[in-house]
Amino acid sequence: MRIKDELKQDAIIQATVKLVNEIGFVSSSVAKIAREANVSPATIYIYYKNKEDLLVSTYVDIKQKLSEALLKNFDESKPFRDILKTVWLNGFEYVAKNIKHYQYAEQFSNSPYSDLVDHVKVEKHFEPMLKVLQKGIDQKVIKNVPHEMLAAFIFYPMMILSNPKLCKTLELSNENIEQAFTLAWDAIKF
Amino acid sequence: MRIKDELKQDAIIQATVKLVNEIGFVSSSVAKIAREANVSPATIYIYYKNKEDLLVSTYVDIKQKLSEALLKNFDESKPFRDILKTVWLNGFEYVAKNIKHYQYAEQFSNSPYSDLVDHVKVEKHFEPMLKVLQKGIDQKVIKNVPHEMLAAFIFYPMMILSNPKLCKTLELSNENIEQAFTLAWDAIKF
Repeated sequence: MRIKDELKQDAIIQATVKLVNEIGFVSSSVAKIAREANVSPATIYIYYKNKEDLLVSTYVDIKQKLSEALLKNFDESKPFRDILKTVWLNGFEYVAKNIKHYQYAEQFSNSPYSDLVDHVKVEKHFEPMLKVLQKGIDQKVIKNVPHEMLAAFIFYPMMILSNPKLCKTLELSNENIEQAFTLAWDAIKF
Repeated sequence: MRIKDELKQDAIIQATVKLVNEIGFVSSSVAKIAREANVSPATIYIYYKNKEDLLVSTYVDIKQKLSEALLKNFDESKPFRDILKTVWLNGFEYVAKNIKHYQYAEQFSNSPYSDLVDHVKVEKHFEPMLKVLQKGIDQKVIKNVPHEMLAAFIFYPMMILSNPKLCKTLELSNENIEQAFTLAWDAIKF
């Protein structure tokens, strides 16, 4: 039963991402999402209170999977630069494999629905990375600036460079991804 | 007549930004936008072919005004770091004063409507800045990497740091804006 439930929930999330990317948040009704996911609308209401809850949960689910992807092979004992580079490469890999989910999350962040998210809870998933940054600051390897400022020069450039809607001509070759990491590291290093 | 036309068009654009931010792209019908702008729907169709044209034109208008704002006090004879710092400070000023327009543009960039934009034409407005970057590359003051990569570490961090939806806790004090510029410059300098 558990697996069946998870499969259903996954199908609902995939359908939400697909429809919202195609026709936008407002037109994506629960009825249409249900049809796309091949479940009944009643099934959606078992898992989600309403459409808003479904849209928000889809975003939270994507952010959680993104944080898990970023933390792959996370090894706090390594030098800071190496830890961050692993996170950097993981990020490009995640977006390349999950571009639709990523675009949903981007559009969601700038939509009015974003106000409904428990951002403190979402940010919790990214805590191991923030801890590493703070350790880097304490050891004077990384500039002593607010975490959000560091994020604007590591995590966001990663997201922008791997978004074909924003970055239209840059080829995401290994060489360019490595090169861009040099810029990110130079930005934040002490 | 000309001034009256411009006032009307401006009212239509303001109404489009307001409505889209509040209820999203799909629900923002021409009829609702007309009501908000205090004009008749027929008036909107004088200036715009259809709703898509209105949404796209609003985005293009915002991007053009942003590029004009960024280029305020642009002086190519100054040192590269100073030129870019002026652009940087202009960017924060623009977003602070036009946050609704900025959020419209962000949401638009990640929406399916973005595919309808003549991006080459939009990018043209930003050419003076790209020229400066290229000159900096040629003179080995700035790293020799693709322009889009440089943009991801100067223009985008500016946009992210000044977006309260993305950057929730960082105070946009002069000190923080100056500090963040140091990170941007360190990222791109040779």
